[in-house]
Amino acid sequence: MPEDANITPWSVSGDLTESQYQRIAHEFGAKIIDSEMIERIRSVLGDVHPYLLNGTFYAHRDLDIALEDLKNGKKVYLYTGRGPSGKMHLGHILPFLFTKWLQEKMGAHLIIQITDDEKFVFRDLELNDVARYTRENILDILSLGFNPKKTHILVDTENAGLLYNSAIKVSRFVNVSLSKAVFGFQDSDNVGKFFFTCIQSVPAFMLTEHTGETWRCLVPYAIDQDPHFKVSRDVLPKIGMPKPSSIISKFMPALKGSGKMSSSDPNSGIFLDDSPTTVKKKLMKYAFSGGRDTAEEQRKYGANPDIDFAFNAYRLLEPDNEKVRKVYESYRSGAILSGEMKTLASDTINSFLAKLRENRPKAEELFDSYKFSFDKFS
Amino acid sequence: MPEDANITPWSVSGDLTESQYQRIAHEFGAKIIDSEMIERIRSVLGDVHPYLLNGTFYAHRDLDIALEDLKNGKKVYLYTGRGPSGKMHLGHILPFLFTKWLQEKMGAHLIIQITDDEKFVFRDLELNDVARYTRENILDILSLGFNPKKTHILVDTENAGLLYNSAIKVSRFVNVSLSKAVFGFQDSDNVGKFFFTCIQSVPAFMLTEHTGETWRCLVPYAIDQDPHFKVSRDVLPKIGMPKPSSIISKFMPALKGSGKMSSSDPNSGIFLDDSPTTVKKKLMKYAFSGGRDTAEEQRKYGANPDIDFAFNAYRLLEPDNEKVRKVYESYRSGAILSGEMKTLASDTINSFLAKLRENRPKAEELFDSYKFSFDKFS
Repeated sequence: MPEDANITPWSVSGDLTESQYQRIAHEFGAKIIDSEMIERIRSVLGDVHPYLLNGTFYAHRDLDIALEDLKNGKKVYLYTGRGPSGKMHLGHILPFLFTKWLQEKMGAHLIIQITDDEKFVFRDLELNDVARYTRENILDILSLGFNPKKTHILVDTENAGLLYNSAIKVSRFVNVSLSKAVFGFQDSDNVGKFFFTCIQSVPAFMLTEHTGETWRCLVPYAIDQDPHFKVSRDVLPKIGMPKPSSIISKFMPALKGSGKMSSSDPNSGIFLDDSPTTVKKKLMKYAFSGGRDTAEEQRKYGANPDIDFAFNAYRLLEPDNEKVRKVYESYRSGAILSGEMKTLASDTINSFLAKLRENRPKAEELFDSYKFSFDKFS
Repeated sequence: MPEDANITPWSVSGDLTESQYQRIAHEFGAKIIDSEMIERIRSVLGDVHPYLLNGTFYAHRDLDIALEDLKNGKKVYLYTGRGPSGKMHLGHILPFLFTKWLQEKMGAHLIIQITDDEKFVFRDLELNDVARYTRENILDILSLGFNPKKTHILVDTENAGLLYNSAIKVSRFVNVSLSKAVFGFQDSDNVGKFFFTCIQSVPAFMLTEHTGETWRCLVPYAIDQDPHFKVSRDVLPKIGMPKPSSIISKFMPALKGSGKMSSSDPNSGIFLDDSPTTVKKKLMKYAFSGGRDTAEEQRKYGANPDIDFAFNAYRLLEPDNEKVRKVYESYRSGAILSGEMKTLASDTINSFLAKLRENRPKAEELFDSYKFSFDKFS
């Protein structure tokens, strides 16, 4: 791990440069998604998502195996998750956009684990607050329009029985030394934290365990979750289960250019319940800009779109690559000013959020039909 | 802890002398059950069990508080357990005899936790073997004739959901340092072992947690389980739950006078499925004797009944104190020979085992009615 970046699932410090991302993937033992892999994805899925082309999802483990299984008509499913520690912001929801695309292209089942126990054990929240965010976060996610027949919400505390009984199988092979090395825990950390990775590993093999038939699991996650899956990949073969494959993203851009977006600071990010006015105000007032200090300089020298929050948010929400490319060129050349870029981004964000709000009653109505049950897999 | 005795719930080494038992209780912070406490028990329960008079149950924590609550008509229940790692022997079943007596005198509910997860996590057994012993052990215990309306069998893997959700509350206050200090674990031990004490603590507060009303818990257990309850007593007040009281026994006598009885060595103990002939043979051939080498010496000098397996087994199974006292005197004086003592003991054991066998079909028939459910408490 680079000296200047310390990544665990619970503490992300350091704002990572492209070369740091490359080095972390390398040191974690993940592979970079290169053009050959992108072509393989295109050949199996018939399409390539912009997040693959622009390097948002940039690394993987055994993605080739999952694609091969998919091509050969074997059972492959997706698993991702959310720790409900607060209101969701834009950075939280975008990976789900990608996962939904993957699900549709793969025609696959998707398990979304809601790790409410994690948020309690790590003392982020008390149980009643966790419960509130659990429901709200699930509705936010479902507002993206996931297929209720193939999308399964697995709330840890609601499914604790099946999770614990499978997690103890994993726990036999995870000792305290390993947890300390992988997660950076110490003797002063509580035993719930040490045990939690076993709970998080269960959705990566539960279908194979339950049916006795191999279900290949592909897990999209941000790089900070990689330690959990390093452990899973190490342990699962020891209990007769297949290693999960993974597809790994960088962190989503931060409004202010650095630091984590946090529910406790409303101005640290764009939250899903921000009004159109608030979104625009946050962009104008707080968004980290890659533009120049004055309009004149901007016209003359152009902006650096790569580090610009507004451009990045626009890029992650605009599905038309050609449009994005043109905006990139115009902004870089100085034809577009920062204010204009921010306006374009806030319009794009607001129409995305409007769509989520429009979908929300439907998500609320279908809420129960998304609940996890083994009966729903085929 | 005495240097010559190392006690954890999983490794008992050293055969303990009376003074070692006293020192362990003292160093663990438990109190000795003295004659004053025995009189208090008599005054509240209207009776005193021989195991209290002969020092088998010899120490306690806050037993006075449980008795006081009982006297005042407050809710008090019993909780004990069994780790199903093999066939049950005499030493396993005798504490349940005492617990049944306590239950009847107290008119109390009793939760019997079957820690099948523990036996798996500690690698004693694989899951299918644990499952087999779970059922067999429960039937053995129920053959003592527990009241199905007030006796609740809580199998960990069958109730994993409610156990895990409560255990995580405990886990926040149990760190790795504490577990190492109390249980002697090391970094090379798996995280399931570290987490397990949180699962074991749940029955000590689950009724209070579930109903919101204080249910005082009294836990009968052998001294090797004390570390778990040291942790429970430390943590439960921190999550707003009452400290459990406990009543603590010495280890049951070993057939050969020392060492643990073990399912893997059929001659290490008297198993509940031993035939009358086998019981007699084991006593004659293997039972550690406090008698003299020859009949002549025995007549002349008498035996030491206190260290004699046959006498101790007889004493633990014969409810008539006066009879036991007379046998003790006769054996000590030399009026009874070792062979006669062994015959008396094997007859007593065999009629106890015959009674268990007689009750077993009834236990099998009522099996399901003993299953734990919150609805059954009032």
